[in-house]
Amino acid sequence: MLRRDYSTQNCSVARTLEVIGERWSILIIRNAFYGIRRFDEHERWLGIARNVLQKRLELLVEQGILSKELYQERPPRHEYRLTQKGIDLWPVLVTMLQWGDRYEAKGKPPLVLLHQGCGGGVDPHLRCDKCGADLTARDVEPSKGPGLLPGQTTPRVPAVSG
Amino acid sequence: MLRRDYSTQNCSVARTLEVIGERWSILIIRNAFYGIRRFDEHERWLGIARNVLQKRLELLVEQGILSKELYQERPPRHEYRLTQKGIDLWPVLVTMLQWGDRYEAKGKPPLVLLHQGCGGGVDPHLRCDKCGADLTARDVEPSKGPGLLPGQTTPRVPAVSG
Repeated sequence: MLRRDYSTQNCSVARTLEVIGERWSILIIRNAFYGIRRFDEHERWLGIARNVLQKRLELLVEQGILSKELYQERPPRHEYRLTQKGIDLWPVLVTMLQWGDRYEAKGKPPLVLLHQGCGGGVDPHLRCDKCGADLTARDVEPSKGPGLLPGQTTPRVPAVSG
Repeated sequence: MLRRDYSTQNCSVARTLEVIGERWSILIIRNAFYGIRRFDEHERWLGIARNVLQKRLELLVEQGILSKELYQERPPRHEYRLTQKGIDLWPVLVTMLQWGDRYEAKGKPPLVLLHQGCGGGVDPHLRCDKCGADLTARDVEPSKGPGLLPGQTTPRVPAVSG
């Protein structure tokens, strides 16, 4: 069931918040962009209670942002992949990342997004700051930034590889 | 006091959420972009309890996203204006607006952002879809969209006029 947190608001920002504004939801979507698909991996990266994670994943499936797919039959095991509706949240995630890098990372972003093959960064207009190409989720990969903690790893796989 | 909602996460998306992820905070920032500065106006547009609104405004001031300024001495009255740190959240708001328009507005956005003087819309790369200019918060104004409800008004003033 979709909630109407901001029912008095006839506003697309409010509608978006009703879909992704639940605590942890945006970080689950962020994980999905980093190629994390399985329950246990989400749990490990987020360190949250399994029942909370389960609820959030179910909500994101219900909202059409993730799709739940069987990857093993015995015992049945599922993974969660971004749908197109989910992939279209990429600009929201990237602009949040850029703002956080600018104001909350003390000049040391933990992670940087690079234009695959080119190596440029992502500018405020979601273009490559080296070659000028318009970028989408499929064009970038996360890479180690100067603020990565000792022992902390970068996500394993390029964004939206599936 | 800034909370660390996602303390296990060394991530700029998580840090951004810690600043703007509180319920209602993003809609207060949205209001500020529409030129709403005073407590009573925020209250009227949001329809929320005054104590909740007061807490959120104080938090946004503490976080350096809004500045609180005296506009009348007797009795003392304050207004809240976006700082540069707040204005730099514009891409986050616009990308959320665009996603909500696309997936949650049933083809009828309540409000559209127009390039001032030119009249073009805002494309997914935050450029004018008519003249191609890179757009910032200062270049656009909100205008009536096809999904505006009968009797609902558009915000009074252009974004970031102050």
